Amino acid sequence: MAQDERTLAQRLLAGDKRALARAITLVEDDRPEGWELVREIYPHTGRAAVVGFTGPPGVGKSTLLGALTRAERARGRTVGVLSIDPSSPFTQGALLGDRIRLTEHFLDAGVFIRSMANRGALGGLSEAALQGALLMDAAGRDVVFVETVGVGQAEVDVIDHADTVVLALMPGSGDSIQALKAGVMEIPDVIVVNKADHPLTDTMVREIRGVLSLGPQKGWRVPIVKTQAAFGIGIDELAEKLEEHRAYIQAEGTLLERRRRNLMNEVVAIATARMRRQLEASIRDDAGVQELLDEVCERRLDPASAATEILARNAGAVERQHDG
Amino acid sequence: MAQDERTLAQRLLAGDKRALARAITLVEDDRPEGWELVREIYPHTGRAAVVGFTGPPGVGKSTLLGALTRAERARGRTVGVLSIDPSSPFTQGALLGDRIRLTEHFLDAGVFIRSMANRGALGGLSEAALQGALLMDAAGRDVVFVETVGVGQAEVDVIDHADTVVLALMPGSGDSIQALKAGVMEIPDVIVVNKADHPLTDTMVREIRGVLSLGPQKGWRVPIVKTQAAFGIGIDELAEKLEEHRAYIQAEGTLLERRRRNLMNEVVAIATARMRRQLEASIRDDAGVQELLDEVCERRLDPASAATEILARNAGAVERQHDG
Repeated sequence: MAQDERTLAQRLLAGDKRALARAITLVEDDRPEGWELVREIYPHTGRAAVVGFTGPPGVGKSTLLGALTRAERARGRTVGVLSIDPSSPFTQGALLGDRIRLTEHFLDAGVFIRSMANRGALGGLSEAALQGALLMDAAGRDVVFVETVGVGQAEVDVIDHADTVVLALMPGSGDSIQALKAGVMEIPDVIVVNKADHPLTDTMVREIRGVLSLGPQKGWRVPIVKTQAAFGIGIDELAEKLEEHRAYIQAEGTLLERRRRNLMNEVVAIATARMRRQLEASIRDDAGVQELLDEVCERRLDPASAATEILARNAGAVERQHDG
Repeated sequence: MAQDERTLAQRLLAGDKRALARAITLVEDDRPEGWELVREIYPHTGRAAVVGFTGPPGVGKSTLLGALTRAERARGRTVGVLSIDPSSPFTQGALLGDRIRLTEHFLDAGVFIRSMANRGALGGLSEAALQGALLMDAAGRDVVFVETVGVGQAEVDVIDHADTVVLALMPGSGDSIQALKAGVMEIPDVIVVNKADHPLTDTMVREIRGVLSLGPQKGWRVPIVKTQAAFGIGIDELAEKLEEHRAYIQAEGTLLERRRRNLMNEVVAIATARMRRQLEASIRDDAGVQELLDEVCERRLDPASAATEILARNAGAVERQHDG
């Protein structure tokens, strides 16, 4: 078993796409070999430019990523795309359909595309996304795009370990503008307005400018790039802005600072996700915990006291797991 | 100290507004007396109708809640309003300004209005929101409105312990419609389209109908209520739909089932939030943990292994806390 893992790591570090695919599956399935593999390849990470994409469904993020991938390939760079699909009864059809737009790259050895679906809490999703990005980084991808779908801060958190965060909008993205304006969602590094052939595009750009003018006026100036991804329009400008941002944070020394903060957050997120998973398992399997929950439902024991009891039961379990 | 707490609980259970205000502050500040108080009053909860409101900023949720409060008062019911403001540099001005729309009720003893701002993770916010709602319930409020702002599933989670979840939209809420359609956000129990004097209102209602037609067709049929909250238009219909939903889940027996599921989720959320807070404290205070994080940043130790180490250190701390 230990020999197989070493071989997988070596193949991954050599850039083997099948090894990369296998590695991501191990991480996605939360298998111990996956974590062991990430541990092994971690010293070889930190080289890739990791770019996170978020935005409401329907703005054409996959088309954008397809076009950007083409632009990066034209510049001689290898690309990894990691799409994070939140779990939902409806999602499967709606979001996986988008993947079709990336198929033109399937035969290119310089492009690796992969979807990850979460099965648990958002913490677990973000955790898996980071591991997936590290694996792509170790496999020698020059650029790693991590894509998630949504319109809230939680979605931004999933890609918060990226060096550059891109928010993709389109004319009509009023709710997202309001969320930025109210500070419910953090300002990203680059904003794209896709489907920019729509007559309301300039109105949208003006609204975004208005929101940005409320934020800090020093440091990086968030560019607004108009694109029509389906026709390749604006994509080169977007690729340039991504490079400019990376050059900026490197020159300012904020890349290291940002990565330090992100890695710290990720360590906490991984630890929290594990504890949560353990708690959920103990709730399923432990008859004593089930009794506590019955008491909560019957209003005899309050939720916080039940949580305290469960934490105490669990502390022992964490220690035992660590010893094992 | 113990005598003070008992007095506060008694005053709270008698419906004293100052006691309720004090109690919520204790919970918001995460003070042990607050948790002790919730423990004490918990057997007296479960009577209030808890209604959660979410939706993008700018749709007029506060105006809606102001108008709904008036409608409930006219029906002789006492009301509690708990507004959950996510922390953000911009938020303070933008969201607290909204509170002004609720001031007409400040002199009415039958109305209690309170904002809570979170300082930490969403888990902590949801935790505080539940405790706040329980306190209002114990203080004898007939209806408790819990409001949060945002356009993602994370925001819905904050109000997920409500008996009825309302999503407020307005013409132009395209991103939210797309999020519902893609299944990124769960379908609520009642949808309100506010600012319904806008010419695109009927288009919006049709889009929502289209989304709802993709969901399950049996059970509760999600009503779409058009309102102009600023003029009181549509508010009585909304109040009726809220009552209908409550009657429905009571008749179907799903109220108890829903509360059981929600309480379980809350117990896990409280436990997770506590563990996370403890982890963050240990990262701040523990030199050994700081060294681990340095190793992560220098790519000598991977984030997951660091998380395992920190969890092991923390397990002991949890046990000690419980013994104390």
